Amino acid sequence: MYGIFSYDPSGPHAGYKYGDHILDLAAIGALGFFDDLPVDPSVFSRSALNDFIASGKPVWQAVNGRIRQLLADDEAALNLVRTQVFIHESRATLHLPVQIGNYTDFYAGIHHAENVGKLFRPDADPLLPNYRHIPVAYHGRASSIVVSGTPIRRPNGQRLGPDNQPVFGPSQALDFELELGLIVGRSNPLGEPVPVDEAEDYIFGVTLFNDWSARDIQRWEYQPLGPFLGKNFGSSLSAWVVPFADLEPFRTTGPTQEPAPLPYLRGSQLPTCFNLNLEVVLQPASGRSDGSGSHASANAGPPKVGTEVVISRSNARYLYWSFSQLIAHHTSNGCNLNVGDVLATGTISGVEPGSYGSLLELSGNGKRPLHLPDVGEHDGSIRTFLQDGDTVTLRGWGFAHGRRIDLGEVSGTVLPAAKTPV
Amino acid sequence: MYGIFSYDPSGPHAGYKYGDHILDLAAIGALGFFDDLPVDPSVFSRSALNDFIASGKPVWQAVNGRIRQLLADDEAALNLVRTQVFIHESRATLHLPVQIGNYTDFYAGIHHAENVGKLFRPDADPLLPNYRHIPVAYHGRASSIVVSGTPIRRPNGQRLGPDNQPVFGPSQALDFELELGLIVGRSNPLGEPVPVDEAEDYIFGVTLFNDWSARDIQRWEYQPLGPFLGKNFGSSLSAWVVPFADLEPFRTTGPTQEPAPLPYLRGSQLPTCFNLNLEVVLQPASGRSDGSGSHASANAGPPKVGTEVVISRSNARYLYWSFSQLIAHHTSNGCNLNVGDVLATGTISGVEPGSYGSLLELSGNGKRPLHLPDVGEHDGSIRTFLQDGDTVTLRGWGFAHGRRIDLGEVSGTVLPAAKTPV
Repeated sequence: MYGIFSYDPSGPHAGYKYGDHILDLAAIGALGFFDDLPVDPSVFSRSALNDFIASGKPVWQAVNGRIRQLLADDEAALNLVRTQVFIHESRATLHLPVQIGNYTDFYAGIHHAENVGKLFRPDADPLLPNYRHIPVAYHGRASSIVVSGTPIRRPNGQRLGPDNQPVFGPSQALDFELELGLIVGRSNPLGEPVPVDEAEDYIFGVTLFNDWSARDIQRWEYQPLGPFLGKNFGSSLSAWVVPFADLEPFRTTGPTQEPAPLPYLRGSQLPTCFNLNLEVVLQPASGRSDGSGSHASANAGPPKVGTEVVISRSNARYLYWSFSQLIAHHTSNGCNLNVGDVLATGTISGVEPGSYGSLLELSGNGKRPLHLPDVGEHDGSIRTFLQDGDTVTLRGWGFAHGRRIDLGEVSGTVLPAAKTPV
Repeated sequence: MYGIFSYDPSGPHAGYKYGDHILDLAAIGALGFFDDLPVDPSVFSRSALNDFIASGKPVWQAVNGRIRQLLADDEAALNLVRTQVFIHESRATLHLPVQIGNYTDFYAGIHHAENVGKLFRPDADPLLPNYRHIPVAYHGRASSIVVSGTPIRRPNGQRLGPDNQPVFGPSQALDFELELGLIVGRSNPLGEPVPVDEAEDYIFGVTLFNDWSARDIQRWEYQPLGPFLGKNFGSSLSAWVVPFADLEPFRTTGPTQEPAPLPYLRGSQLPTCFNLNLEVVLQPASGRSDGSGSHASANAGPPKVGTEVVISRSNARYLYWSFSQLIAHHTSNGCNLNVGDVLATGTISGVEPGSYGSLLELSGNGKRPLHLPDVGEHDGSIRTFLQDGDTVTLRGWGFAHGRRIDLGEVSGTVLPAAKTPV
């Protein structure tokens, strides 16, 4: 997995996560290990991956291959330079992996769309008429995307109060959204659509993405132009980008698309998806009062206060639209994507309640509070929406044909809202 | 007005529009005319105004003052260097004035919101319940904003066909939107709202902005997350940015806001707006068949084919929300604005039909075709939405206390849609 890290005065530059160490790609390049490849090694000294990504898919392939080769055979090739090129992750500060020009958020998780429809339009078809025809999406805010580990301040905002009059203050319905974020690897010129059969060439890699949402702000503001302040106070991107090619072993048949999409969304082959496990882990604020700050797995031992609780288990295969279809649709009107853009999938919920990708769904919009038995019976053991001090971590991994891939994690802790001006 | 132009091998750099000439600010800086000012003159050699803007308001004021001084007194101070520093605009290529990080589109024109409400919800209150409480907005696409003069390709897209089934093809309802675009002059850190009384310090300048819209694509896609492909195929920004301070003589009392907005939107003084005339000029495609390409005013003589037609006259004072309120609201949840961001106002329509800022309104969603008498009686004299080859130009100016200000123009010609993949 590629990312940007810093640990010494040379500043942020590119690295490759390998277990609990980071392979310093700038150092590897300076030592000549990329000299016979068609890559300018200075791209690894930059503070974002954009220039490396813009070098093109043949370069990604060559660099991927060389890194695998160097790490194979117990890293014998790196023996003499081990201390120069391996940095323990505890010594590193992680940064946003890419400079993000534009961020688009799709709505490609069909069970999420159905769940939201049932909550807000109980007497109608839960899916809106366009859902199975269009990968619905909207533009989000790129400037407020932060790297995993950055705290998220609870937003203030306008919402409808108990007497149905607007009030301003801290959101009372702060939520997470379990998503994947694609990192765009290739730019298309304005006016030139990307055909669906070529669309995967435009994906550099995949991240975990938490599209934090203030449901009360969103509900009051979103008609008629969509979400705005309910979303743009912050979104969290994982620090490490999984090369898209590494997902190949986990590719599987996508869900049946009925009715068949229009030709511009229909490739020469049936759409595929990826069998990747996703989970949402909550470390409740109240659980932190013992000061343990433990990061042990929720399943690793007897539950105790301070332990993380897995509150949802989902899978990337619940996405209705394929990655290729997202890109073909996005560019079908000529809209230009740029290297480093983030295309988030939308919330990925499964069919069963334990697989929902947001608290809105998990708590039935607050009507069925979530009990956190693992943290014991006390005031902090119930959630409708997030409390200050709660930490949400999204994790992902795949296991297929005897191979495991780790998608890493994206994590953030909720800070109390800023004092509001009166 | 500040902008970015190129005319020689030195590449795009900053200029100041003065009549039909451009004062070359890089040349002025190199000649030492800014040496006693607190500005690094190299900012004027860059291909975007961002570094100049980021230098801060005291620098804008000092540079504005020096430019006025140099241009006063029949430019005597520049006599010896006249040929080095004045470039006739016919020799220049104009570029986007800023590198745009994020683009937000508001909905602050209340008559536009009412007109759209009447068209699409004829039996309900034309304004949605949130309108007078929130400056409604959504995020648009920054990557597809182009400079005035760039042709706009008619988008292909998915829309509902005559039998209410989705079809894909060229938009049949291509429209313009008459807007102003604010250029953000100062960044606020993520998590730190800008108080409404300080908000104007965050505006560097004002542009004309055409938010081209494909109404049929938009109508089918926009539920529940707002406009996407109906907008992001292209938006046009004027090449020249009017310094915000230059608008001061045109400031006037804003519309009465009833009910009173919540305190975070209420400054220590009543909101103000700006009395700036805006107009929409259509040069119909059919009018070009005589090859005249005339740019004469529609009122300057007898109408003839090829003449531009003023199809709408509006005014910036029709905005319901003040610029300060747009910024205070946008940042109220902690969202960070960056130097060079564009905040567009939304369509600025007046009360009377001749003052509407979009063809959607002017033609009653196609039900009352617009007749263009000035171009004669022929097939090209009727418009519901835009035809290929049509050129739309938005212009603006103010006149108050004996002073006139020119806001320049933003113009674009519609190209036929790209061939669709089958």
